[in-house]
Amino acid sequence: MSTAESATRSRTLEWSDPVATAAAGAEMAGLDYLRAVIAGELGRPPISITMNMEVVELDDGRAVFAGEPGEEHYNPIGVVHGGYAATILDSALGCAVHTTLPAGVGYTSLGLEVKYLRPISRDTGRILCEGTVVHRGRRQATADARLTAADTGKLLATGTSTLMIFGG
Amino acid sequence: MSTAESATRSRTLEWSDPVATAAAGAEMAGLDYLRAVIAGELGRPPISITMNMEVVELDDGRAVFAGEPGEEHYNPIGVVHGGYAATILDSALGCAVHTTLPAGVGYTSLGLEVKYLRPISRDTGRILCEGTVVHRGRRQATADARLTAADTGKLLATGTSTLMIFGG
Amino acid sequence: MSTAESATRSRTLEWSDPVATAAAGAEMAGLDYLRAVIAGELGRPPISITMNMEVVELDDGRAVFAGEPGEEHYNPIGVVHGGYAATILDSALGCAVHTTLPAGVGYTSLGLEVKYLRPISRDTGRILCEGTVVHRGRRQATADARLTAADTGKLLATGTSTLMIFGG
Amino acid sequence: MSTAESATRSRTLEWSDPVATAAAGAEMAGLDYLRAVIAGELGRPPISITMNMEVVELDDGRAVFAGEPGEEHYNPIGVVHGGYAATILDSALGCAVHTTLPAGVGYTSLGLEVKYLRPISRDTGRILCEGTVVHRGRRQATADARLTAADTGKLLATGTSTLMIFGG
Repeated sequence: MSTAESATRSRTLEWSDPVATAAAGAEMAGLDYLRAVIAGELGRPPISITMNMEVVELDDGRAVFAGEPGEEHYNPIGVVHGGYAATILDSALGCAVHTTLPAGVGYTSLGLEVKYLRPISRDTGRILCEGTVVHRGRRQATADARLTAADTGKLLATGTSTLMIFGG
Repeated sequence: MSTAESATRSRTLEWSDPVATAAAGAEMAGLDYLRAVIAGELGRPPISITMNMEVVELDDGRAVFAGEPGEEHYNPIGVVHGGYAATILDSALGCAVHTTLPAGVGYTSLGLEVKYLRPISRDTGRILCEGTVVHRGRRQATADARLTAADTGKLLATGTSTLMIFGG
Repeated sequence: MSTAESATRSRTLEWSDPVATAAAGAEMAGLDYLRAVIAGELGRPPISITMNMEVVELDDGRAVFAGEPGEEHYNPIGVVHGGYAATILDSALGCAVHTTLPAGVGYTSLGLEVKYLRPISRDTGRILCEGTVVHRGRRQATADARLTAADTGKLLATGTSTLMIFGG
Repeated sequence: MSTAESATRSRTLEWSDPVATAAAGAEMAGLDYLRAVIAGELGRPPISITMNMEVVELDDGRAVFAGEPGEEHYNPIGVVHGGYAATILDSALGCAVHTTLPAGVGYTSLGLEVKYLRPISRDTGRILCEGTVVHRGRRQATADARLTAADTGKLLATGTSTLMIFGG
């Protein structure tokens, strides 16, 4: 029996051209750009649709994401794939650093380290991921992030990242 | 203008109950289970549909995934989100270790470390991710993985993982 | 001119048999053992002599080390070798977890991740390294640590670790 | 009984001013500098004396260290401290990248990730650590390294690193 025949669930993703949005963002300060995304003034980044997550808080050096993983993010061993936690952690880490950047200064992540602490399932519900800048140098920054279950507060995973800063 | 109004692209994900499939897998040796998934005898893991990736080679201690990231995986700075690379690396790392497990023995990833080397875009096309077991102990295993562009062979990202083995 | 001929500095390390001390420790709760080491009731671990560092605070789930790196820890590019920071971070991370273990329960570190933020030199003086348990499960634990200059409070490096717990 | 009273072993470290040596190195291509260190034309880096290790092979993009850990590197749980493996791995990783740098170009390590696979003791004897460049960009490089027992070939630990390149 093929997957197609047995498929009993579906979800449709809809998004707009992400490159046009990013080009607009390149000329804005990080915090302004991210706030415009939240306000719906710029197209929502497609990954946030695919992963069912969004930014819910932003400050200078801090970003909080909320997500709701579903069955479409399941791995072959019956829980949400570790890539879901990696994605939301990477987002919170990158955006926390992005909030500190003036217009014309860009960043790229050099690496991500994730620690998986508790399994995430379709029953976990809403999760929160808070990223915080640990060190912000001229050419590099580091950040750490915590992923928790919204209802119980239990720690599900943690992450750290090193990012390179350029331009400006 | 809301995202919904401006959406000009869409994709529909279809999958079957992933928990039923995983339960069947828990009683099989890792290599047998993964081969049954490839052969379409068991439901395809939903994350592989969402991330548009699949296992293409399996040996004892080795797993190769192929993927094709698209716009639906884009981040707010105009390239494929780092979570895509993290997900396919995590898959190759976990499955490489899974191939070494007899029936009744399970695993869980304790952590994932990713190094991002080159950006991935909608123009990158097909990518290949090869995971290899580095150390297979009784209670822990480690693996490393390389993610490359299929057409140029350029190295896009690398990953390592530590996994805990239990049961058996 | 050989190194021996040009050597103008020296330091003599003195220690006692570390295996005998560790055997005594294996039968004690972690916090009791580490407190006995601080009190000088058990031999000082040789690495702490070689690296010129010592535990200065201990609580349940927390350990603080102080160190004073010197020229004997210099690398070929004219600053204190990254291995010094790695060693004191690893110590604070491991001891933070060790404080949570009852008698008869052991641990081993599966991995260490270090981020180097500022160079350390022979002029840095005293440094402090605080390790804190982030997650303490039955079979695994994670911890993070911060290394700072004692006089300025500047952050020099950070570390994280995953540890396996066994016995008990 | 204090440590001083019970000390039954000692070792004297002798070295020359490491800053003068590093200043000479800053004007040389990496491979030339490291070869001059091996040849004894420049002072031996003090950390290599303290950790009882040395470079034994060098190529473009590759460096092999040999070490012999002793009791003076023991931790409080009766084996060689993880900082020893971290130090020799960090050395092999950094020097592998250093070999690729022309005169006037410097590097600094942004981070180190170590996986501990087997314990190291005073009975392990000589160990070998091979570092290899994985990616060499204009502003960043990554490398990986393997630490093995010289007599059995058993893998003891692995490491990866991200380094920043500047100048030139």
